[in-house]
Order: sequence, then C-alpha cells, then structure tokens
Amino acid sequence: MTDRPRPKQTNISACSIAATLEAVGDRWTLLILRDLFRGVRRFEALNRDLGIARNLLTDRLNRLVELGIVQRLPYQERPVRCEYRLTAKGTDLSPSLVALMRWGDRWYAASGPPIVLVHDACETPLEQAVTCPSCQENIRPHQIGSRPGPGHKIEEVLT
Amino acid sequence: MTDRPRPKQTNISACSIAATLEAVGDRWTLLILRDLFRGVRRFEALNRDLGIARNLLTDRLNRLVELGIVQRLPYQERPVRCEYRLTAKGTDLSPSLVALMRWGDRWYAASGPPIVLVHDACETPLEQAVTCPSCQENIRPHQIGSRPGPGHKIEEVLT
Repeated sequence: MTDRPRPKQTNISACSIAATLEAVGDRWTLLILRDLFRGVRRFEALNRDLGIARNLLTDRLNRLVELGIVQRLPYQERPVRCEYRLTAKGTDLSPSLVALMRWGDRWYAASGPPIVLVHDACETPLEQAVTCPSCQENIRPHQIGSRPGPGHKIEEVLT
Repeated sequence: MTDRPRPKQTNISACSIAATLEAVGDRWTLLILRDLFRGVRRFEALNRDLGIARNLLTDRLNRLVELGIVQRLPYQERPVRCEYRLTAKGTDLSPSLVALMRWGDRWYAASGPPIVLVHDACETPLEQAVTCPSCQENIRPHQIGSRPGPGHKIEEVLT
C-alpha cells in the first residue's frame, strides 16, 4: 500500500476472455485448432497445410498438450509416430471457432462462405445465437448486459 | 508451373477463420475490442485498463479503424479529443467474444465466472448455442459437418 492513488483498473486476470486468449489467443494456435477440428492431425500434415515453420508448430503443439487442449496419441508402433487429438477441453472451443468463422463469412467472403457448416444428420446449414432462456428470444449485442459473477473479485480501487 | 508435384494444400485465404484471424487474431486487438464492448472508449482509459504500451495501442487502434471495425469520433472540440466506437462490423464480433469468454469461464474460472452476461431486459443469464433450424436441436461439436459453400474455390492439387 502506498499513499499515491492508483488509477482504477480492471483486473484483467479475472476476465475470462483474457484467460482464453492467454491460452489460445495466438493466430497459429487457432489455425492449428481449426485443422484438428477438420481432421488434420499429424505433424507433417499440419506443417504442409498451414505452411508454418516446424519449430513454431512444435512449440504451439507442445503448449496445447501442456494445457490439456490437445493430446498426443501413437498411431504407429515402429517407429512410434503420434497424432494430435482434441481433448474435451479442446473440443469445447468449437463454438469459438464457429463464431470466428461466421464473422469472416459475413465480412470477408465476397462471393459467399467458402465452407458451410451443416448438421451432419440432415445437412441443414447451422445457426449460432445468443439466447435468453427466460424470454426465449435471440439476443442482439446491444441487449447484452453484465453483472459480477461468483468468481468476481472486488478490486482495489483508490481514486 | 513446374514439373515437380506440389503437396496438396488448403487455400488458407479461402478459410473464413483465417480471414477473421488476419483482421483481429491478435491478443491485444481482441482485448481492445472487449474493452470497447464494455464502454471503455478513450485512448487514456484503454491504455490504463489494458496496461498496453502507447505505441502498440495506437497501432492496433489505427488498424481497427482502417479495417472499418472501429470508428474515431470527437467527443470534445478544444482541443479535439476522440473516442473509439465499434462500427456495425465491430459490433458483429460480439458472438466471437461471447464464445471466447464462455470457454474461459468453463476452463479457467475455478470459483465461477467473474462476469455473467445477462439479457438487459430481464437479467437472465444468457446462453449461446449452435442450432439446426430444421431439427430445432442444439448441435454438439461432433454433430457438425461441412460442405463447400458458394465462395469455395477448387484448389490446384498435383499429387
């Protein structure tokens, strides 16, 4: 504690967007995850598909494994060769990648979406929405409010 | 064209996730956008809230303005002072930030979400889902298929 007033500031570590970006907020990492969702799972295939330098790919994959987002599984015995699979934590990033893809579709795909996500059972194009379970309405961005949740920490504010 | 066969490769530029990440796939950029959604709009306030270096903040804001994601609007005449507001294109990133936040809530918020997003009208916590409009079902990641869309380009594949 000092006498000098400190500016009011948000505790970034208490923000879940910052926590997510700390883990996967890197362009290569998100592109690797996209490939894993698409079934590109082997080092050589990822290297070829992304055109990423091998040391960067190794680095990003190791970090994803450390964070429990991806697991390394052998697909061949002699010599041992591994592939990378999304864990439950990794698979749970699906809504984030869907949202990022749809924004690109709306703002950068002049001739329409390059890829359409569909329900595998009926091939209908999918939708993604933020909804209010009480009003059963789709919610637009300006209708979103926020309040402190159980993990909110009262921040030290001296003004 | 050469005689040498080239590996099959995905045209990354034809992927909307890559297009999105090209525009906003930078940790600082996404944190700046998060702050703009929360109403932190002035340079000094962003600088304080994020603890970002001034030159990096200037750089990221200029790029967001160039891309039409953010607009610079004067809030004071003498001297002229500006604030930054999300455009429609910027506001449309809301579902992406919601998705990234919810993943952080699920995997990094040990004592529960720090912030809960609610419907402003009724204060009910919001949900986000990928749905099939035909089956009217919530779709889980393993039920998502894909097919080429209108913007799909046949790629040159020599094997």
